[in-house]
Amino acid sequence: MSGGRGEGGRRVLLGIDPGTAVTGFGVVALAARRCATLLQCGVIRTSPGTPLPGRLLEIHEGVGELLDEFAPAVMVVEQAFQGKNARSALTLGQARGAIIVAGARRGIEVAEYAPRDIKKAVAGTGAATKAQVAYMVRRHLHLRADPTPSDAADGIAAALCHAFAPARPLARSPR
Amino acid sequence: MSGGRGEGGRRVLLGIDPGTAVTGFGVVALAARRCATLLQCGVIRTSPGTPLPGRLLEIHEGVGELLDEFAPAVMVVEQAFQGKNARSALTLGQARGAIIVAGARRGIEVAEYAPRDIKKAVAGTGAATKAQVAYMVRRHLHLRADPTPSDAADGIAAALCHAFAPARPLARSPR
Repeated sequence: MSGGRGEGGRRVLLGIDPGTAVTGFGVVALAARRCATLLQCGVIRTSPGTPLPGRLLEIHEGVGELLDEFAPAVMVVEQAFQGKNARSALTLGQARGAIIVAGARRGIEVAEYAPRDIKKAVAGTGAATKAQVAYMVRRHLHLRADPTPSDAADGIAAALCHAFAPARPLARSPR
Repeated sequence: MSGGRGEGGRRVLLGIDPGTAVTGFGVVALAARRCATLLQCGVIRTSPGTPLPGRLLEIHEGVGELLDEFAPAVMVVEQAFQGKNARSALTLGQARGAIIVAGARRGIEVAEYAPRDIKKAVAGTGAATKAQVAYMVRRHLHLRADPTPSDAADGIAAALCHAFAPARPLARSPR
């Protein structure tokens, strides 16, 4: 495993905003002095008509393809927990399990941040709206437009939060 | 995939009681007239000192080894949801995600039952205690002693619930 450093010593981060229906992601490359560029962003959508195992497999394999393509140094997963009831927390947990196992199978470091910390890191306040987050992601990465959909922007924001944060991996897979 | 029918037309079921710390399992073979025998039961334990990705990977791979060894026709997962707060539901969901993806990757049918339905199926009442469930699992399978620990008994009970229930797979993986 190369450790996610590509040409020119870039460090690649994959940020993930987990969800069973829509999982947002952003792949960010960090050069010297924390200057960040966007390599790719988007969403993994699953159909409500597909039974749960199939949806979780699509998420697991979709994230796995991103990990294989970009070989990030770290996969950064939003902890997304605020205001959830037990049922929606269980559903979200299942998507998170499918995602984290994709990283762990490849021995990739997994970091987690609370939504509040991610918003604060990219927009200066933990109470930032989705629009603010998308706008600030755009500014940080010098994009021509806000990334869409907002789940993709949230995935990028997770990656940027890790890029801006002092080093503190919350979890590392065993390989 | 053989579809989980071994010698003599037996149908094998893998029952799972998911948890991040302890995942119980029971492998049951069904012969004609729903006569069930126990092939194996036990628990997958993970250490609280291991970071989350490593724990989820241990669960994912532990279940995967059971699936590869016994090639069950169906993996039956307890829905375990009662009285959970959002945080513990999220944690449980992560373990469930790791388990269900192990089945989905192998194209194995996944069925789910609520704890209440499992208790009712094996012990005649949805309000059965853990001890009642263990006792009834022992009677159904003609064991010399109650299966231990109780998580293993709960895994077996999930498999028996599916064995006793009218056919109704709640979820099937896409392959």
